Amino acid sequence: MRSTEREVVRFDGDTRSVTHDRVAVEEPLELRIGDTPIAVVMRTPGDDADLALGFALTEGILLTPAELEAVVAVDENRLRLDTTKKIDADRFRRNLYTSSSCGVCGKGSIDAVRMTMPPYLDRLTIDRSVLVELPRRMRERQTTFAETGGLHAAALFTMEGSLRAVREDIGRHNAVDKVIGAVATGDWPLTRYVLMVSGRISFEIVQKAGMAGIPCVVGVSAASSLAVELGAELGMTIVGFLRGRTFNLYAGLLKGAPG
Amino acid sequence: MRSTEREVVRFDGDTRSVTHDRVAVEEPLELRIGDTPIAVVMRTPGDDADLALGFALTEGILLTPAELEAVVAVDENRLRLDTTKKIDADRFRRNLYTSSSCGVCGKGSIDAVRMTMPPYLDRLTIDRSVLVELPRRMRERQTTFAETGGLHAAALFTMEGSLRAVREDIGRHNAVDKVIGAVATGDWPLTRYVLMVSGRISFEIVQKAGMAGIPCVVGVSAASSLAVELGAELGMTIVGFLRGRTFNLYAGLLKGAPG
Repeated sequence: MRSTEREVVRFDGDTRSVTHDRVAVEEPLELRIGDTPIAVVMRTPGDDADLALGFALTEGILLTPAELEAVVAVDENRLRLDTTKKIDADRFRRNLYTSSSCGVCGKGSIDAVRMTMPPYLDRLTIDRSVLVELPRRMRERQTTFAETGGLHAAALFTMEGSLRAVREDIGRHNAVDKVIGAVATGDWPLTRYVLMVSGRISFEIVQKAGMAGIPCVVGVSAASSLAVELGAELGMTIVGFLRGRTFNLYAGLLKGAPG
Repeated sequence: MRSTEREVVRFDGDTRSVTHDRVAVEEPLELRIGDTPIAVVMRTPGDDADLALGFALTEGILLTPAELEAVVAVDENRLRLDTTKKIDADRFRRNLYTSSSCGVCGKGSIDAVRMTMPPYLDRLTIDRSVLVELPRRMRERQTTFAETGGLHAAALFTMEGSLRAVREDIGRHNAVDKVIGAVATGDWPLTRYVLMVSGRISFEIVQKAGMAGIPCVVGVSAASSLAVELGAELGMTIVGFLRGRTFNLYAGLLKGAPG
């Protein structure tokens, strides 16, 4: 259930009405390796297995989707990842802290990211005429946002602009993890995809894209300084403020761009 | 430095221009208790001591501002909290996980929140005529957002609508921690204040407000299901979609509301 109905009191100037409003659902999800909890994320329920896989891949817990044997629901808000290789969850958690980076929350020092980022980034990029079509294509599939106004969305497109998957979540990073998890099993790493996000492009969005091998990150809003730096260093294409035929190219290259 | 200039390529239809754009700065900040790192947050530099104090208070590491003796800069991106009482940082970190809640990231199960929330919430609320003035008053002070379009803001107002502090940050939770840290030293708990945020009202925003004793939380965008539940349970007033004279009352009461 991605949205739920609640009674709200709506005020409009001097008129007041009791009405029903759809709000986005937010609930904690605990992820475990074996019996060890490794993270609690606040997420919108739905596509939880995708979220678990995407999180494990973009946080460097798993290197490929093939390392995941099964995702088992312990209960409604707890998932256990069964892996084909032994993962010392305790050591993983200790390392997150001793390296001064809190990977559990997707947070880490930029040095840690540079060390763990896989080296397979191509220099593939998207055509400008395809790029400007992406926001509309994503919006057409954002069903819950239309209802609640309360969700972030992330989508993966091919370089030709074909939409492979879109996911919505109350958390920006969860939406990215979900869409990466949704596509990863069939196609890994995601070196031939464009990641589009409905909001700002932060460092952690670029970090997650990098961990998945995605060469182009596109957003409808601003990019942060560190996001642009990391993207440039990795050879990514970073596009922000994509609205209509107008956008900012913060890093990298585009095909079909006028001189 | 809250924003920085970067060269970007601006596309507008078929015209392409190289220009300079201001982007919001994002950098990691490590917080330590003694020599032990307890968290890394991705933040916009500035007001770091406020962020550290607000984080420690809203995550339950400190119970009052008086427990903080000093905030010492280890280097540009590392702060050490010196406390008047002994805090076993190792035990704190272990507990975060064994209780299945990642307080380091502001994440925790709702049960954990209910256990640690201080019981001093009054049932103070704001007048409707004051409420509708808050967005304009906050926007007038959002200097970096105007430059970059890339920052979240949080403000604390008195019940009479007087602005006590506003803080901006690339991270929603950081903006809340900063503004709480800014006001906490002179006035704790914050039972006579209204917290206003520039975006969505999530569970963690309400959680942080609750830990600070704030009875009213107001946002210009949607509230999540769990945010409304927690707010209602704590007796808070939760207002969303505040735009002009129009808004939704999700929980609690207002003064001066028409019948």
